[in-house]
Amino acid sequence: MKEIIAVVRINKVSATKKALVQVGAAGFTALKVMGRGRLVEDKAVIAERRATLLALAQKDDYNTEKLITEFLDGTRLFPRRMFTVLAHDEDVSKIVAAIIEANRTDYNVGDGKIFVLPVLDAVRVRTRESGDAAI
Amino acid sequence: MKEIIAVVRINKVSATKKALVQVGAAGFTALKVMGRGRLVEDKAVIAERRATLLALAQKDDYNTEKLITEFLDGTRLFPRRMFTVLAHDEDVSKIVAAIIEANRTDYNVGDGKIFVLPVLDAVRVRTRESGDAAI
Amino acid sequence: MKEIIAVVRINKVSATKKALVQVGAAGFTALKVMGRGRLVEDKAVIAERRATLLALAQKDDYNTEKLITEFLDGTRLFPRRMFTVLAHDEDVSKIVAAIIEANRTDYNVGDGKIFVLPVLDAVRVRTRESGDAAI
Repeated sequence: MKEIIAVVRINKVSATKKALVQVGAAGFTALKVMGRGRLVEDKAVIAERRATLLALAQKDDYNTEKLITEFLDGTRLFPRRMFTVLAHDEDVSKIVAAIIEANRTDYNVGDGKIFVLPVLDAVRVRTRESGDAAI
Repeated sequence: MKEIIAVVRINKVSATKKALVQVGAAGFTALKVMGRGRLVEDKAVIAERRATLLALAQKDDYNTEKLITEFLDGTRLFPRRMFTVLAHDEDVSKIVAAIIEANRTDYNVGDGKIFVLPVLDAVRVRTRESGDAAI
Repeated sequence: MKEIIAVVRINKVSATKKALVQVGAAGFTALKVMGRGRLVEDKAVIAERRATLLALAQKDDYNTEKLITEFLDGTRLFPRRMFTVLAHDEDVSKIVAAIIEANRTDYNVGDGKIFVLPVLDAVRVRTRESGDAAI
């Protein structure tokens, strides 16, 4: 058993839910988080991302500039949704692929991250089934 | 050391907290999540669960029907509370049993799920104690 | 790869964020939780902590007394922030040290807890990079 954790854009919540249901994910939760990805040091990459974020914001006033600067220098977190999915070992790769498919965009930053953790046991409260039968 | 994660009904939060304190759980957090369990394909089971959810809702207007349909087909998540409990290895089974005891109902759906993850280390910030001493 | 989970005081969120950015943490999320630490049985320790919490509250009316009693007997959870940090194995100890440094106070209770979980794989959605390259 594994726990798949995915941190995605807010506007990809619905697509991610649909993808999880379609791929037969056995049960999942979604929760509100604030997040940020890896801090980039390369000035060219930062400039490129700043341009992307400005274009996405569709305005370039002082506040927007400030927001984007604080995001790029790591002092500001942005709202994201975290999904946690309990999965059989053999289903992990197709669930991860489905989450990627639902969340890829053409932007050069911010499509999110997925990580996979080991799970030692699971229990369905209603039936007391445990292990893979509980997923 | 283990992390016990339990996803429970909102109206079982208080009972779960009491159960954790009584069983001597060493520290825990509770957070708001939206969630859903395993998607069921069996039409008889779906019909039975629909009847249960309708009875629980105590009304059968269009919106209630719609909510229940969307829950059963996986497109709607319901509010749940997630507990995370840090536990010594030898305490896991009694903590899991206490959570089950506090959360079992007579309904045929939705009593929640518990899973157990391995923890490599723990640190108490105040004292810098680590490992089992930090739990 | 590891997941570092830290549960900290609300008024330490900003210091924790700064510490994570300064130490080069590769991406993290912050979420709202309610939490409590280990339940203490020792009456002298409880009395000492009650005094600390009363001093922190800077009032000793009935409600404050009640809140503190419920906190100390485990029936009340307090708002905390949970950070989840994805880290390379070799960065775990310096990230944990940075979180401790940012969160230690002189109070005798409530500085928070850190735990470290194993991560089997990570994927950056945008590039499909996986493993350590995705962190």
